[in-house]
Amino acid sequence: MTDVAAFSFNKLVIFGVGLIGGSLARALRERGEVEGARKVIGVGRSPASSARAQALGVIDGAAALNDDTALREALRGADFVLLAAPVAQTQPLLERIAPYLDTATIVTDAGSTKSDVVGAARAALGARIGQFVPGHPIAGRESSGVDAALPDLYVSRNVVLCPLSENAPEAVERVAAMWRATGALVREMTPEQHDRVFASVSHLPHVLSFALVEQILNSPDAALKFSFAAGGFRDFTRIAASSPEMWRDVCVANRAALLDELDAYTDVLARLRSAIEAADGAALEAVFARSRLALTEWQEQRAAGLARSDAPK
Amino acid sequence: MTDVAAFSFNKLVIFGVGLIGGSLARALRERGEVEGARKVIGVGRSPASSARAQALGVIDGAAALNDDTALREALRGADFVLLAAPVAQTQPLLERIAPYLDTATIVTDAGSTKSDVVGAARAALGARIGQFVPGHPIAGRESSGVDAALPDLYVSRNVVLCPLSENAPEAVERVAAMWRATGALVREMTPEQHDRVFASVSHLPHVLSFALVEQILNSPDAALKFSFAAGGFRDFTRIAASSPEMWRDVCVANRAALLDELDAYTDVLARLRSAIEAADGAALEAVFARSRLALTEWQEQRAAGLARSDAPK
Repeated sequence: MTDVAAFSFNKLVIFGVGLIGGSLARALRERGEVEGARKVIGVGRSPASSARAQALGVIDGAAALNDDTALREALRGADFVLLAAPVAQTQPLLERIAPYLDTATIVTDAGSTKSDVVGAARAALGARIGQFVPGHPIAGRESSGVDAALPDLYVSRNVVLCPLSENAPEAVERVAAMWRATGALVREMTPEQHDRVFASVSHLPHVLSFALVEQILNSPDAALKFSFAAGGFRDFTRIAASSPEMWRDVCVANRAALLDELDAYTDVLARLRSAIEAADGAALEAVFARSRLALTEWQEQRAAGLARSDAPK
Repeated sequence: MTDVAAFSFNKLVIFGVGLIGGSLARALRERGEVEGARKVIGVGRSPASSARAQALGVIDGAAALNDDTALREALRGADFVLLAAPVAQTQPLLERIAPYLDTATIVTDAGSTKSDVVGAARAALGARIGQFVPGHPIAGRESSGVDAALPDLYVSRNVVLCPLSENAPEAVERVAAMWRATGALVREMTPEQHDRVFASVSHLPHVLSFALVEQILNSPDAALKFSFAAGGFRDFTRIAASSPEMWRDVCVANRAALLDELDAYTDVLARLRSAIEAADGAALEAVFARSRLALTEWQEQRAAGLARSDAPK
């Protein structure tokens, strides 16, 4: 990880200093050997959130989104802008930022979907789209908000960048270096690849988990069922306690890829239904055994990957 | 929990000394003030497992299932028999046991399904069905086998009993007292209620989780998808690494209730699909918010329940 020492910045402006934005700020200020003035400015709608982020020492200063003068000042001379707000706000945020954006500033984001974000960025930035390098850090915690921000949230986590043909290679490398300075592993994909992969391993499981809770709530004996739900149910539904607003936006923003995955899933479920109805134990066991083997291998690879990243650098 | 001191037994015979049977044995021998000779005999197919259980001190003695003389001796004068083998083995096991069963011995089980188990018990025991009190302890761990057995596995956990009209109330109370002596909370349901509730909160989530892994494995970019799967995926699929044999049996044994729940689930999923396709954010958010609220309340009730049970007795 020799790249850690190579990263330097003077000013980073974060729109939405919650768990994701706050953890980036803390990582860049508290970890490794990041150089430069390392000033971090938070911009948000809520003065209380900004005050809290400042009180925690996560940011050096704050600007209100609706204050033209403060926003212009915040963005002047910024190396980086990070959008860490819900994806549906990408276009209005970029339209708000565009008039004050220095030509040398690199804008990136932390959105869970990418095709729609790229579309929003093209609409808002027009010919300046090359300044926008789409990104998605794959990290989270059960708690949210700036109080949950951690300097090591991104250690050994994947950060996906989806470079555009208009991006200068140096701009992409600068964003990659920023994330590597947090301990993250940077990987590149196209927006379409990204959206298909995360529709499958993240967005669909959320929908499936929400759907189970909804089904139980719709049943006449919901209270009885909940009273016997145990550890397996708790794990399966943990993601169905996620932010309704965020997942509403993700489902809508990535609906094309999500519907493809959902339809493929429904086909698999129909096959399992037939096997259950036919009491075809052999067919069921074959599917279940394949699943267990794949998960065991995945968990071993994950453990090995995390162990490697934790090794001395 | 004054019932703890009231429980006494001389001999318990466990068919299948793994996590579930082994934890009952350890609880009755290591916890609380259980009285009597407290002898526990394990019966199984594998001499190695029995030897391991004996070496760990979980059981006092062992008998091989195919040894008539040893089996007769093991069952002579037993207060209790626990069946802790896969549910599909209920009928052959009871047929094997029946010739040696004392009229005073109470038989119970730990199967995850109950209607089929009751049917199997009626077929095997005939007029002696009153000796069989169906049960299901709702407890588990990620690891299985007798090495994973714990004396406190059942503390604050639900144990469901499904008494039959043929059971003497004293027999049901004896089984309830045995489970209460482990720290468990005993609740009664009919076999049909039990199967509907667990089809909903346990069996269906397992099928849904297995189906997601199967779908990914069937896709051309499975390796790429797994390489980006993170914490939400891990929680959602934890139960899809469960025993293929056990879940094959459960799905087949409880297929009527499971198919009902699966069809109701498919309807909910179709409604969510329509909302996603129509980009109906308000409809999605309403479902997601209901889910989060219900889970938050459930977790609070769970935490309160566990805290109460942990209070001094």
